[in-house]
Amino acid sequence: MIIDALQYSNWSRPIFEQMREGGLDCVHVTIAYHENCVETIRNIAKWNQLFEQHGDLITLVGSSSEVVAAREAGKTGVMFGFQNCSPIEDDYSLVEVFHTLGVRFMQLSYNNQSLLASGCHEYQDNGITRFGKQVIREMNRVGMVVDMSHSGERSTLETIDYSSRPIAITHANPASFEPVVRNKSDETLKALASSDGMLGFSLYPHHLKNGSKCLLKDFCNMVASTAELIGVDHLGIGSDLCQHQPDWVLDWMRNGRWNKDSNNEAAWVSQPDWFDNCTDYGNIAEGLVQAGFSNEEVAKIMGGNWLDFFERSCTAMKP
Amino acid sequence: MIIDALQYSNWSRPIFEQMREGGLDCVHVTIAYHENCVETIRNIAKWNQLFEQHGDLITLVGSSSEVVAAREAGKTGVMFGFQNCSPIEDDYSLVEVFHTLGVRFMQLSYNNQSLLASGCHEYQDNGITRFGKQVIREMNRVGMVVDMSHSGERSTLETIDYSSRPIAITHANPASFEPVVRNKSDETLKALASSDGMLGFSLYPHHLKNGSKCLLKDFCNMVASTAELIGVDHLGIGSDLCQHQPDWVLDWMRNGRWNKDSNNEAAWVSQPDWFDNCTDYGNIAEGLVQAGFSNEEVAKIMGGNWLDFFERSCTAMKP
Repeated sequence: MIIDALQYSNWSRPIFEQMREGGLDCVHVTIAYHENCVETIRNIAKWNQLFEQHGDLITLVGSSSEVVAAREAGKTGVMFGFQNCSPIEDDYSLVEVFHTLGVRFMQLSYNNQSLLASGCHEYQDNGITRFGKQVIREMNRVGMVVDMSHSGERSTLETIDYSSRPIAITHANPASFEPVVRNKSDETLKALASSDGMLGFSLYPHHLKNGSKCLLKDFCNMVASTAELIGVDHLGIGSDLCQHQPDWVLDWMRNGRWNKDSNNEAAWVSQPDWFDNCTDYGNIAEGLVQAGFSNEEVAKIMGGNWLDFFERSCTAMKP
Repeated sequence: MIIDALQYSNWSRPIFEQMREGGLDCVHVTIAYHENCVETIRNIAKWNQLFEQHGDLITLVGSSSEVVAAREAGKTGVMFGFQNCSPIEDDYSLVEVFHTLGVRFMQLSYNNQSLLASGCHEYQDNGITRFGKQVIREMNRVGMVVDMSHSGERSTLETIDYSSRPIAITHANPASFEPVVRNKSDETLKALASSDGMLGFSLYPHHLKNGSKCLLKDFCNMVASTAELIGVDHLGIGSDLCQHQPDWVLDWMRNGRWNKDSNNEAAWVSQPDWFDNCTDYGNIAEGLVQAGFSNEEVAKIMGGNWLDFFERSCTAMKP
């Protein structure tokens, strides 16, 4: 079982074929960064067209049993998620509507202050807002995972404490590996694991030691030291792979419609040569063995832990 | 099994309690008249709140098996529908999104010309449009019923001919019973039945002989003569019951945002005393027996035919 807890590619049949070739059983895909409600609905409608056109390769999934069914049908299960709370606008009740449409992850903030929480690039972290607590409760109720990958540390710690269900950091690495603001402190990682939450290790060059030149060995040793810190049961992959995207998409992700001062010069950087696309998960699995993990532990990290997490996270709580 | 194929009430717990008291197993409720995409999404979110608050009385249903399950759980199944195509705006792909959210009926036009078809009160009936054919095909594919209750006759006949699945006229009566523009010609009713479609008899006073003073006997004799014309297997109830609505809602239904000349003086008229609310279905069933129907035929008209129709209409066609 291979599960990738974050990708945002310029989706096409060749990419879906790579997913099958690489044995990817489930991928959490981003369907909104700054889109409002109706723009997100349209993104879902576009995905429906992809499912209709490429139904031999991909299928929508919203639970661990649907992931297993997709695998048995020889397809990659696609799970929807938001990197921001913009799709629900100011309305907690849209959480359930989007859950019905297949959305299983939502970040409470994306780099900036949102109506719910502070982002990791904001001037200061103000913690969870009044509306934020209402939305966390609603996400807990319907079975939508709170993702704090791009949120600030105070907001993240408060959310781990407030949420009645485990949360996730779908795509980030320990700051001890590469000290960028998007990577997470040992304190955050320990709180995450002790609440039964999940960390997805990122393969995005800006989150890696030596960026695009990061060695597989260094990456896997980082996984090993994280396992020593918080245990192997809370670790997975969240590659942040963004294939075939034009540069303007990076500008949209970073600047949306909020930044008049955007210089529009953002450009994508190369992936490490050992993780360039969806056929390369085997390289990571092999590297983890080399780093000292048992086969059983490698299976957990490559997908088993996420599958277990979906089992306890993606369906409604009993009333 | 009692199924009502059209209601638009000012929903509240007392109404849901009446549904249970009257043994109503399933009701098709209108969730949009002139609302655009995002306004309709918000109406669905409001319904989610009703399901959460009154989950002991009502539950969302989208198929015949879900209607049966609702009945077995002692609840009234609620099926969503649109009286107009405004929720999909100019985008055929929103049909599938709304189907996922539970919508099982959509009228192609409401009184006026729409992007898809002409309404029954329009200056002339121009038939199905280019976009209209695309939407009918998409509705056929995903399993959303085409409803022509408020459409013109040419548009209706063209749709019966073009649609690959049977259509419905959820709430109208034969024009031979009461010659108003909303009631349907014998030609339309015959074409509807010969394509295996369904007619839901309306209890809305403006569709009845002598309006609010219509006699139960006259109504049931009208059902009997319709059964003589097109057979008993294509007949059901679509009461058009609108309980507890303020007068401004009638103005919204009729004039939406399109009519600057609305005089705002529309007012609701009383229901016949033998069908005032959801506890009165038994009166109709009794009247049908008096009109000469067998118990088996009464069971078909009161809900069995709609249940069979849902079985063949509400789920996606095999690719």
